[in-house]
Amino acid sequence: MSTNGEVKKINIAYIGGGSRGWAWGFMSDLASESGLSGTVRLYDIDNEAAKSNEIIGNMIRQDYPDMAQWAYQQVDSLEEALTGVDFVVLSILPGTFDDMDIDVHYPEKYGIYQSVGDSVGVGGLFRSMRTIPMYKVIGEAIRDHAPQAWVINYTNPMTVCVRTLYSVFPEIKAFGCCHEVFGTQKLLAEALAEETGGEKVSRDEIKVSVNGINHFTWLTSASYKDKDLMPIYDAFVRKHFESGYEYGETGNWMNDFFSSAHRVKFDLFLRYGVIAAAGDRHLVEFVDNSWYLKDEATIKKWKFSLTPVSWRKSNLEERKEKSTEMISGKKGFDIKETGEEGVKQIKALLGLADLITNVNFPNKGQTSFLKDEAVVETNVLMTRDKIIPLLADPLPEAIESLIQQHSANQEMIVQAGLTNDKEKAFQAFLNDPQVHMDPKEAKACFDEMADQLAMFNYA
Amino acid sequence: MSTNGEVKKINIAYIGGGSRGWAWGFMSDLASESGLSGTVRLYDIDNEAAKSNEIIGNMIRQDYPDMAQWAYQQVDSLEEALTGVDFVVLSILPGTFDDMDIDVHYPEKYGIYQSVGDSVGVGGLFRSMRTIPMYKVIGEAIRDHAPQAWVINYTNPMTVCVRTLYSVFPEIKAFGCCHEVFGTQKLLAEALAEETGGEKVSRDEIKVSVNGINHFTWLTSASYKDKDLMPIYDAFVRKHFESGYEYGETGNWMNDFFSSAHRVKFDLFLRYGVIAAAGDRHLVEFVDNSWYLKDEATIKKWKFSLTPVSWRKSNLEERKEKSTEMISGKKGFDIKETGEEGVKQIKALLGLADLITNVNFPNKGQTSFLKDEAVVETNVLMTRDKIIPLLADPLPEAIESLIQQHSANQEMIVQAGLTNDKEKAFQAFLNDPQVHMDPKEAKACFDEMADQLAMFNYA
Amino acid sequence: MSTNGEVKKINIAYIGGGSRGWAWGFMSDLASESGLSGTVRLYDIDNEAAKSNEIIGNMIRQDYPDMAQWAYQQVDSLEEALTGVDFVVLSILPGTFDDMDIDVHYPEKYGIYQSVGDSVGVGGLFRSMRTIPMYKVIGEAIRDHAPQAWVINYTNPMTVCVRTLYSVFPEIKAFGCCHEVFGTQKLLAEALAEETGGEKVSRDEIKVSVNGINHFTWLTSASYKDKDLMPIYDAFVRKHFESGYEYGETGNWMNDFFSSAHRVKFDLFLRYGVIAAAGDRHLVEFVDNSWYLKDEATIKKWKFSLTPVSWRKSNLEERKEKSTEMISGKKGFDIKETGEEGVKQIKALLGLADLITNVNFPNKGQTSFLKDEAVVETNVLMTRDKIIPLLADPLPEAIESLIQQHSANQEMIVQAGLTNDKEKAFQAFLNDPQVHMDPKEAKACFDEMADQLAMFNYA
Amino acid sequence: MSTNGEVKKINIAYIGGGSRGWAWGFMSDLASESGLSGTVRLYDIDNEAAKSNEIIGNMIRQDYPDMAQWAYQQVDSLEEALTGVDFVVLSILPGTFDDMDIDVHYPEKYGIYQSVGDSVGVGGLFRSMRTIPMYKVIGEAIRDHAPQAWVINYTNPMTVCVRTLYSVFPEIKAFGCCHEVFGTQKLLAEALAEETGGEKVSRDEIKVSVNGINHFTWLTSASYKDKDLMPIYDAFVRKHFESGYEYGETGNWMNDFFSSAHRVKFDLFLRYGVIAAAGDRHLVEFVDNSWYLKDEATIKKWKFSLTPVSWRKSNLEERKEKSTEMISGKKGFDIKETGEEGVKQIKALLGLADLITNVNFPNKGQTSFLKDEAVVETNVLMTRDKIIPLLADPLPEAIESLIQQHSANQEMIVQAGLTNDKEKAFQAFLNDPQVHMDPKEAKACFDEMADQLAMFNYA
Repeated sequence: MSTNGEVKKINIAYIGGGSRGWAWGFMSDLASESGLSGTVRLYDIDNEAAKSNEIIGNMIRQDYPDMAQWAYQQVDSLEEALTGVDFVVLSILPGTFDDMDIDVHYPEKYGIYQSVGDSVGVGGLFRSMRTIPMYKVIGEAIRDHAPQAWVINYTNPMTVCVRTLYSVFPEIKAFGCCHEVFGTQKLLAEALAEETGGEKVSRDEIKVSVNGINHFTWLTSASYKDKDLMPIYDAFVRKHFESGYEYGETGNWMNDFFSSAHRVKFDLFLRYGVIAAAGDRHLVEFVDNSWYLKDEATIKKWKFSLTPVSWRKSNLEERKEKSTEMISGKKGFDIKETGEEGVKQIKALLGLADLITNVNFPNKGQTSFLKDEAVVETNVLMTRDKIIPLLADPLPEAIESLIQQHSANQEMIVQAGLTNDKEKAFQAFLNDPQVHMDPKEAKACFDEMADQLAMFNYA
Repeated sequence: MSTNGEVKKINIAYIGGGSRGWAWGFMSDLASESGLSGTVRLYDIDNEAAKSNEIIGNMIRQDYPDMAQWAYQQVDSLEEALTGVDFVVLSILPGTFDDMDIDVHYPEKYGIYQSVGDSVGVGGLFRSMRTIPMYKVIGEAIRDHAPQAWVINYTNPMTVCVRTLYSVFPEIKAFGCCHEVFGTQKLLAEALAEETGGEKVSRDEIKVSVNGINHFTWLTSASYKDKDLMPIYDAFVRKHFESGYEYGETGNWMNDFFSSAHRVKFDLFLRYGVIAAAGDRHLVEFVDNSWYLKDEATIKKWKFSLTPVSWRKSNLEERKEKSTEMISGKKGFDIKETGEEGVKQIKALLGLADLITNVNFPNKGQTSFLKDEAVVETNVLMTRDKIIPLLADPLPEAIESLIQQHSANQEMIVQAGLTNDKEKAFQAFLNDPQVHMDPKEAKACFDEMADQLAMFNYA
Repeated sequence: MSTNGEVKKINIAYIGGGSRGWAWGFMSDLASESGLSGTVRLYDIDNEAAKSNEIIGNMIRQDYPDMAQWAYQQVDSLEEALTGVDFVVLSILPGTFDDMDIDVHYPEKYGIYQSVGDSVGVGGLFRSMRTIPMYKVIGEAIRDHAPQAWVINYTNPMTVCVRTLYSVFPEIKAFGCCHEVFGTQKLLAEALAEETGGEKVSRDEIKVSVNGINHFTWLTSASYKDKDLMPIYDAFVRKHFESGYEYGETGNWMNDFFSSAHRVKFDLFLRYGVIAAAGDRHLVEFVDNSWYLKDEATIKKWKFSLTPVSWRKSNLEERKEKSTEMISGKKGFDIKETGEEGVKQIKALLGLADLITNVNFPNKGQTSFLKDEAVVETNVLMTRDKIIPLLADPLPEAIESLIQQHSANQEMIVQAGLTNDKEKAFQAFLNDPQVHMDPKEAKACFDEMADQLAMFNYA
Repeated sequence: MSTNGEVKKINIAYIGGGSRGWAWGFMSDLASESGLSGTVRLYDIDNEAAKSNEIIGNMIRQDYPDMAQWAYQQVDSLEEALTGVDFVVLSILPGTFDDMDIDVHYPEKYGIYQSVGDSVGVGGLFRSMRTIPMYKVIGEAIRDHAPQAWVINYTNPMTVCVRTLYSVFPEIKAFGCCHEVFGTQKLLAEALAEETGGEKVSRDEIKVSVNGINHFTWLTSASYKDKDLMPIYDAFVRKHFESGYEYGETGNWMNDFFSSAHRVKFDLFLRYGVIAAAGDRHLVEFVDNSWYLKDEATIKKWKFSLTPVSWRKSNLEERKEKSTEMISGKKGFDIKETGEEGVKQIKALLGLADLITNVNFPNKGQTSFLKDEAVVETNVLMTRDKIIPLLADPLPEAIESLIQQHSANQEMIVQAGLTNDKEKAFQAFLNDPQVHMDPKEAKACFDEMADQLAMFNYA
C-alpha cells in the first residue's frame, strides 16, 4: 500500500461509531497524522448517531484540505463494517447510563461507594456481565469477516473486553489502549520540572517500565534521558502528600471533571515504593474498600471524587447538542489532538514508525506473576504487523498478590459471562476486595442487582 | 538397621520435649507400634519439663514390657539432641500463652475476633514473627548436626514453620503433619454410615484427594472402596446445613474443647462444591472476616466458638498437675493412641510400610496454582527415605485465588521474619482478609501489637 | 456394581480382539483374578480371528468353572464394541508384518540397523505414520461411544498412540502399559539375591522411582523394604559388565526370544549413575546409532540381537496353528498369568485395591523437564476412577536432554501424522539420533520408504 | 554525569586490552561517537601489549582532536582495572593459538572437521573448559570491584562466557554482543535490492525478530519499513541455492577471510522456513556432522571453508607488526567504524538513545522453549541502566529441539567447568551432534585431548 513512506487506502471499521466523544477525538487524530489516508466505516446500534458522525467526519475533510484525508461512511451491519478492513476500533457504551446508574449507585444501599464503577468491584462485575455477550458477538464477527485486521479496544472494562475477544477467537490481533499511564507520565514531568527548576518536558519523553492490569498499573522505574526520576518523584511525593498536589494541567472531559489531589497515588508510593499509574478514582476501586472508600468522610479526606452517573447523563446531552450544531453548520469541527495513541499505533503496525508504549495484551510471559493469556498492561514494541511484549519488572509481592486476585476474578467473570453462569459470577463477587459482607447479605445484593439489570433471567 | 522387618536403635530428637500433651501422645504411639525401638532425646528450653518427661517416658517402658521399647533421655542443647539422629520431631510453643493472649485478644479492640489465632490473620502474623527466628536457629542446627535426618513438624503456624526450615537449609528433609483432614475423613465416615445405614468405617479407609494449605485444605474427591462419597456428602450437608450437625465422636483435648456444628464447612461446600477439610474454627480465619467473624452475633449464628487463651492457660495447669502425679507415681501413664500418624510415617520412611497421606511439603508441582517452594498440603507417598508428592487436583478458581492470597502473604511473612523487615510484615498485615481498616488505623493496631510483643524493637 | 468387594457385570471392549498372543494372556489374567466378572467384546478388522477368540474365551469359562467367569462376544464394529463399556483395551498390530519388514529392514540399505523398530528411529517413525490415522479413528469412536470408559493401551509405538488419543479427545481417560520396567525389577531382584545370598523376591516388592518415556525409562532409586538397592546394583554391574549377565529367568515369547546380556544397560549405568529400565534391544534405539548399532560387529560386542521380522512372521504362523488346535478341541487353554498388570489396574480403577505402578500418561507436571501433555512414563497411583501421577525425580542432565529430543520428535510425528504433513515428518526423521546422513541422502531414504509403504501419496 | 545530552568522565575497563584487533576497533568506534568521553583502562595478562595499546589509544586523541576524546591507561591488575568503572568490556583470547590448534585440528584424527571450533562441538567444549575458570576469576573480580558496572562480553564461547559470569555473580549486569545477525541483515538488504531493483539500504533499517543461541540464531520475520522481507528472501534463496550466492560486500578480517556462498543458510531456510542468522561456518557446527561436515568433499560441495588455526597465527603476526609500526610512528591510526554496536549500547545504557538490538542475555521468559537463566540471543531494548528483553517468537519444533540440545549441553559444560567435573564434561561431549562415536572411542578422543591441553589433571 505504501509509496514513499505513505500508506493510502487504509480501511478502518469503527464499532461504536455514533459516539460523540471518542469518535470525534479519533477523527481529530486521524486528520492530524500525515502519511495515512483511507476510509472509516462507522457502525453503531444507534444508526442515526453514526449517520451524524459520517456527516461530521466528511465535513472535516472538506474544511481541512491540507490535513490527512479520510472518508467516513455509516454502515448498517457488523459484517458490512468489518469485511476486508485493516483495522477495527472498538469503542462502545455497553448498555445505557441507566444501567450504569444501577451498577454504580445501587450498592450504596449496602454501604459500597464507587468512584467510577466500570472496571472491577460491584459495578465492574455487572458491567462485565452486560458487555461480555456483546463482545462475544463482535469477536465472532471479526473472526468471520476480518480475521487479519488489527483490533484496538477502548471500551471498559478493558481487561474483560480484550480477554473476551481472545476467548472467542484466539487468533485475533487485538489490544487495548488506555491513557491512564500517560497521565502519570505528565505528573512525573511536573515533578521533574518542580524539583529541578527546568521546563516541563513532553510526557512521551518520560520513559517508564509498566506492569499490572488496566487501571491498576504500576511503574517500577522512570527516566528522563540519563536522569533517574524515582528519587525525584520520592522527594515530590513527600512534599505534597499531606495536602495533596493539585494537578496543574487542565483535565479533558474524559476523566478529570472532578479534581483529584493524587493523595491515594502518593500513599501507595510511600507504602510500596513503586508508582501507581492510574488516576486515584480508579486505584481506590482495586484495593480493600476500607482503605479509601469506606465512607464519605474517608473519601473526602483522600481528596478524590465519586463520578455520579447523573453527570454522565447531562454531559451526554451537551455532546448531543454539540453534534446537532455541527451538523446544522452552526458550529465547525475543531481539530484538537487528544493525546491518545491510536493513530500512532496504526502507523507503527503499518511499519512506518516503531513505537514502544503500554497496551493491554494477553500475557505470553511478559508479566511473570500472572497466568498465560490473562490480559495484562505492560510495555510492548509495535512494529510492522507485530506487537512484541517487553518483559516487565516484578512488583512488590503485596502488589502482585492484589493484582493476582483481580486477574483471577476477571478470568472467572469472563467465563461466567460466556456461559451465563450465575454461581461463578457470585463467587467472583464475593472475592472482590470492595465486597465485605455476610454471604447471605452479599447474595441479596447480588440478586437484587441482577434482577434490576435483567440478568441471568434466562438461566 | 533392620532384621526381619524390624528396625532397632532408631534415634529420635524431640524438640519441645517438655510438652505435657503432644509429647505424651507421641510416647503412646511409639509404644503401640511394634517393629520399632530406640531412643528419644528430649530437648526443651524448659529443662525441668523435659526431665519430667524423661521420667514418664522411661516409666512406660517398665510398665508396659510387652509393648515397643523406647528409652527417653533429657538433653541440654540442640546440638546434643540432634547429633546423629534419624528423626527429629518439632513440637514447640513459640513464646508464652501471655504472648498468645496479645496475638488473639488484643485485636478485639479493633473489632477483629479470632477463633484460634495461630495460622493466619493478625494472630497468625505476630505468632509467625515470633516463631521464624526460633525456626531459623533450629533449621541451622539441623543443617549442622543432623542434615540427613527426617524432620517432622507439628508446630503452628505450620506453613510458616516448614517454609522457614527450607529457607535456612534447602536440603532439609522436613514435612509438617496436621490432623485436621483426619477429622474431615471421620465426618465423611459418619455421613456414609448415616446415608447408607451401614456401620461407621475407619477414617483411613476413606480415600480423599487433598489440595491447599494447612488449615485451609480442600477435598476434591472422596471414596470408600468403589463408592463415590461426593453425592453422599452432598445429601448429608443439605439435610444438616440449617441446624448444623453435632459431631458424634468425643473430641480430644487438642482442638475440640468447644462444640462445632460444621455449618461453615457446609456453607463452603454448598457454594464451591468441594469439601473444606479443616475444623470450622480454622476455616473462618482464612476468608473475609465479614463472612463468619464479623461480630459475636455472626459467630453464634454459625455455631462455632472462639477459643479463649485463658482456657489454654488453665488447661496447661491441669496438665502440669497430671505430670506431677505421674512422676510421683500417684497416677500411671495411660497408653492411648492419638490417631496422629507420626509413628506410621517414621515406619514408612524406614521402608517398612508405604503410606499415602497428606502432609505439608514444598511445592514441586503438586499444586499447580502455587509457586514452587511454597509449602502446600497435599497427598504424598511416603516410602523408604523418600516423600513423593502426588499431583493434586485443581480447585474452583475462587478457592485457588483465596489460597494464593494467603500463600503470597506467608511468603512475605517468612521473608519479613528472616530479615526483621517491619515494612514487609505490615504489607502482609494489610493483605490479610481478616484486616479491613483504613491504613492509618491498621498501622496503629500493628504498631501497638508490635510494641506489646517487643518486636522489631531492634530495627 | 459392587457387593462385598466384588464387582460384576463389567463390560470391556478389546480392540485387536483377534490377537493370538496378548488377547490370550489377557483372558488368562481375567480368569485368574477373583472378584471381577462380566463380558469382553472382541473387535478386530480380522473378524474370523476375533470369532475364534470368542470361542476360545468362552471355552475357558466352561473349562475352569471355579475361576472368574467372563463371557466373550465377537462384535462387528467399533461402535458395537464400545457403546456403554467400562473399559477399553487397545492392542492392535498397525499394518502387517510386511509393512514392518520395510520399517525395520529397508534402512539397512543405508547402514541403519534396528533391533526392534517399533518405537523411535526410522522404523518407529514409519510405524507411527501408519498408526496415527488408525488411532484417530479409535479415539473419535471412544469419544462418541464410550467417553467415560478407561482405556488401556498396549500397542506400540506406545507414546505416539497415547498422545494421539489425547489429541483427538482431550477428555479421554487413557493410559499405556508396558512390562519393560517389570523386567528391570526382576533383574534387581536377581542382583539382590546374588549380592546378599538371599532368595529372589517377587519383582513387585522392588520399589522403584520411574521417569522418562516408554522404552527409554530410568530408575533413580530402587529399594527392597529398608534396603537401598543402588549400591547393590552397582556392585552387581561392575562384576558383570565385561562379560555380560545372562539372565536366569526364561523369557516369555513376547520379547525375549533372543538372548540379551544387559551390557548396554550396564554401560549406561556406569556412565550416568541411574538405571535404564528397558531391554537392551529397546535402549539402543534411543541413543546415537554409533554407540551400539553402528554395524554388526558393534552389535555383537554388546551382546544383544536384532529381531528379524521374518521371525515374527513364522512365530505368528505357530500361534495361528495353536488357535486352530484349541478351537478344534485338540488342545486345551492353559491358564498362565502373564505378569502384566492390566487386570490389577482394572481392579484398582474400580476402587477395589489401590495400585502404585508405572504407566504412560500425559505430563501434568510429574516430569519436570518435558512439556505439559507430552506422554511420559512415571509412577502413578491408581485408585477409584482416578490416575494420580507421582512427581518423578529429575534425571542426569545428559539423559534429560536425550529424552527431550525424542519427546519433541514424538510431538512432531503426532502432528505430522494427524495432518499428513510430509515435511514435518521428514524434519523429525532428520532429528532422530539413529539418522546421520547428508540431508539429500536422508531425503532419498525417507522418500523411498514412504513410497514403498504407500504413505503421503495423497498429499 | 550529563550536560546537554553529553556524558563525560565515563570510566571503562577493557579486559584483554592488549588485543590488536578488537581493541583497535573499539577505539575507532569510541572516537567516532560524539557525546561521550572519558578514560579506558587497559588490562591484559600481556602487559606489554596493553602498554602498546595505551600509546596507540592516546595517539588517536592527539591525532584527531575534533573527534570524541578518550584517555587510555594501562593497568596492572583486574582490581585496578575495575574499581569504580561504569562499563567493562571483556574481549580475551582464552589460552593460546597453540591450544586452539588442538581444539580444532586434533579431532581430525577421528574424522571430525571443524570450521571454527570456538562455540560448540569438540573444540567449543575444550575451549569452554579452558575459559570457564578464567571467567570465574573475572566474574568474582567484577562482583568485588565493580558490581554496578555494565559488562559487555565479546569473547567466545559467547554463551558459556555469559552464563559463567551470571553463575558466579547472579546480580551482574552483563550481556554478550556478536555481529553475526548483522551479517544476515546485510544479506537481506542485498536480497531486497536485487529483488526490487532498489538501492541497498543500511542493515540497521532491516527489522528482524531474533531467537536462539549465539551462532545458531534464527529470524522468524524480517521487514523493511512496510515491506515483508520473507517472500523476497524466499525468491532470492530459490534463485541462488544451487550455485550459492557470492556475497558482494568485502568481508572484514574478523571472520570472512575465506569465501562463503550461503548455501548452508539457504538449505536450512528451504527446509525450515526461517532464516538462520549466522555465517555458514558457524551454523554447520550446530547440526549433525553428517549434514555439512562429514568429509572434505561434503564441505566443498556446500561451499564454505574451515578456518585453519595456522591462518590465525600468521594473521596475528601481521597485526603485531602493524602495532609496532604505529607505536614507532611509521604508520598512523586509521579511524574506521567497525559496524559493531558496543559504543551505541553504552550510549543507550547511559540513557542517551534507546536501542533495540539482539544480545546474549539470561532467559527471563523471552525464549519460551529454553530454561530460565539459560543464555539466549534475542532482541532487547536497551535504555537507561536497563536491558529489557522482548518476547521472541517460537521457532519450528525441529529447530527448538536442536537448540535445546545445545543449551542443555552448555549448561552441563558450565557446571563441569566450575567444578572441574570430567565425567559431566564427557557426558556433554557425547551429547554433541558433532560427535558420533562408539563410547569407548569417544572416551579415547576426549582423554587424549584433555591430556594434551593439560586439563582435569588435578582432578
